[in-house]
Amino acid sequence: MSKNFQVQLASFPKSIPRPNDFKLIETPIPDLSLDQVLCETLYLSLDPYMRSQIAGRHMSGSVGVNEPMIGETVSRVVMSESKDFKPGDIVRCFGGWQHYSAHNASALQMVADTIDPMSYALSILGMPGLTAYAGIIWQAEPKPGDVVVIPAAIGGVGATAGQLAKLKGCVVVGIAGSEEKCQYATEELSYDACINRKTENVSDRLKELCPHGINVFFDLVGGELLQTASEQLAIGARVILCGLMSEYNNSTRAAGPAPGLWIKARAIIYGLVVYDFEHRREEFLKNCIPYVKSGELKIREDITMGLETAPESFCRLMQGDNFGKALVRVGT
Amino acid sequence: MSKNFQVQLASFPKSIPRPNDFKLIETPIPDLSLDQVLCETLYLSLDPYMRSQIAGRHMSGSVGVNEPMIGETVSRVVMSESKDFKPGDIVRCFGGWQHYSAHNASALQMVADTIDPMSYALSILGMPGLTAYAGIIWQAEPKPGDVVVIPAAIGGVGATAGQLAKLKGCVVVGIAGSEEKCQYATEELSYDACINRKTENVSDRLKELCPHGINVFFDLVGGELLQTASEQLAIGARVILCGLMSEYNNSTRAAGPAPGLWIKARAIIYGLVVYDFEHRREEFLKNCIPYVKSGELKIREDITMGLETAPESFCRLMQGDNFGKALVRVGT
Repeated sequence: MSKNFQVQLASFPKSIPRPNDFKLIETPIPDLSLDQVLCETLYLSLDPYMRSQIAGRHMSGSVGVNEPMIGETVSRVVMSESKDFKPGDIVRCFGGWQHYSAHNASALQMVADTIDPMSYALSILGMPGLTAYAGIIWQAEPKPGDVVVIPAAIGGVGATAGQLAKLKGCVVVGIAGSEEKCQYATEELSYDACINRKTENVSDRLKELCPHGINVFFDLVGGELLQTASEQLAIGARVILCGLMSEYNNSTRAAGPAPGLWIKARAIIYGLVVYDFEHRREEFLKNCIPYVKSGELKIREDITMGLETAPESFCRLMQGDNFGKALVRVGT
Repeated sequence: MSKNFQVQLASFPKSIPRPNDFKLIETPIPDLSLDQVLCETLYLSLDPYMRSQIAGRHMSGSVGVNEPMIGETVSRVVMSESKDFKPGDIVRCFGGWQHYSAHNASALQMVADTIDPMSYALSILGMPGLTAYAGIIWQAEPKPGDVVVIPAAIGGVGATAGQLAKLKGCVVVGIAGSEEKCQYATEELSYDACINRKTENVSDRLKELCPHGINVFFDLVGGELLQTASEQLAIGARVILCGLMSEYNNSTRAAGPAPGLWIKARAIIYGLVVYDFEHRREEFLKNCIPYVKSGELKIREDITMGLETAPESFCRLMQGDNFGKALVRVGT
């Protein structure tokens, strides 16, 4: 067995993180106690919530300087002191930014072989997909013809949310940060339109594209886009509050839209935390795997090779320069 | 038949309205066309939304300078060109701030004689009561033991909301603007506690009174209290956005709480507009009239005598100096 390497936080980033806020160091491969399992990381998921963990304000835990970065992984069992897992099993766990990790057996979930490629267990058939499904299907409950607006249109959550809304017969408008991303949204992900927030006036374009208002806004960004969308809600609109991409790099939290906008629209606003829907993951998989197999649900994964690429890839993600769901291929 | 007097807007108030922003003038008693009904105002309801109508930003209509003030009334039919109404009928209509008003028959609703006294058709068994019922019962759906917080605790909507929550077995905490109001809330309206927002630190007191967080916040005020409450929501909280008392006198609209607070609480936020629940008024009355008769639902009406008292009473309301639901006794 090779040595263990892990990525630790080297310093607290003030704003957008830079690669030298992280360091790659060698650590011992952990020993196992009874009922524990040693896993080798195959894929590591990079997600915006990690920026909040670094800042110490995420509900799932915090990361301090000289501590290993946390992250969900698809891993292969290499040693097992548990009767429930054997070497070779492919599991989902929070292996973190490292090659090897030890876990209590209860912290591992088997990855079904219907999830193929296995990286999908971290993207369209994983937490981002479940997040999108919970927000669009279980919370927003869109009707055919509803106008659904998705900022971060081609990201890990947004891409799935947009396609699910299309499958429900909605008119889906995306917002993304480049011409290339917008083109991908309309040509590959079946969005009806996609607004380039860097070159277009989002408010004007939304007025053109949604003349009767927005029925569902799946908020992944907060800030100005949430305000702009809230000004253009249709009566009875649903707003899913799921992410605050525009704010993760800031040290203060911006105020939200004026409540009067939501009263006027008789809107229903849902705070979405994916952990609350873990118990419905099987239902989500059962419904989505056929769409993935048929190609009706697509995902573009932005995969970089080698653990040492994780810091740079994460920094690209946090400035919106990734293209698709950010993953790192750690082991083979 | 005596002359008609009406109160018109004399000038746009910049902030809190003053009595001389209004003027009492004599106008002709309107003529009736076919299917119209002439009504004599008995009670006029004064409500905070009128401040928004003056500012031209309320969904129900606007009032300009030299135009009569709009308002819901309990009125007596005095002449009728409609087969559906006869002199002596007691009706609910938007008679406005005046002695006499003409209406198409379709704009009148009979006041059932089970509503006694008839002023209750404008308070606990009228629009304020329906607002409270829709927000607490149909939207927030509180469970026994839920902690429900009601700002403007003894106002037209708040008093009913608080008592309905108590009838559902909730722990109910009010917020009000004087010691006398707080005492009334706990002693007469069965609130478990009431915070004096003028003399107490609301945030600290909420922490003491709701150590496990707020399950339902029925927002009638917006601004700082909405922010404070949003910081102390329990997981799964419901926030009813219903009124913005803290802002009606301002010319700009304040931002809302940081959305992250609502994500963290997995809150559901409902924009409430009472007009949407008009079709369920009978259900509301059927459920609430027995509680009113038994004394389990109480209302204190702040009734002033004579149309000429309307401006001053409205100004008191808009600075929070009323005590109970503001009404004017116009005719006898």
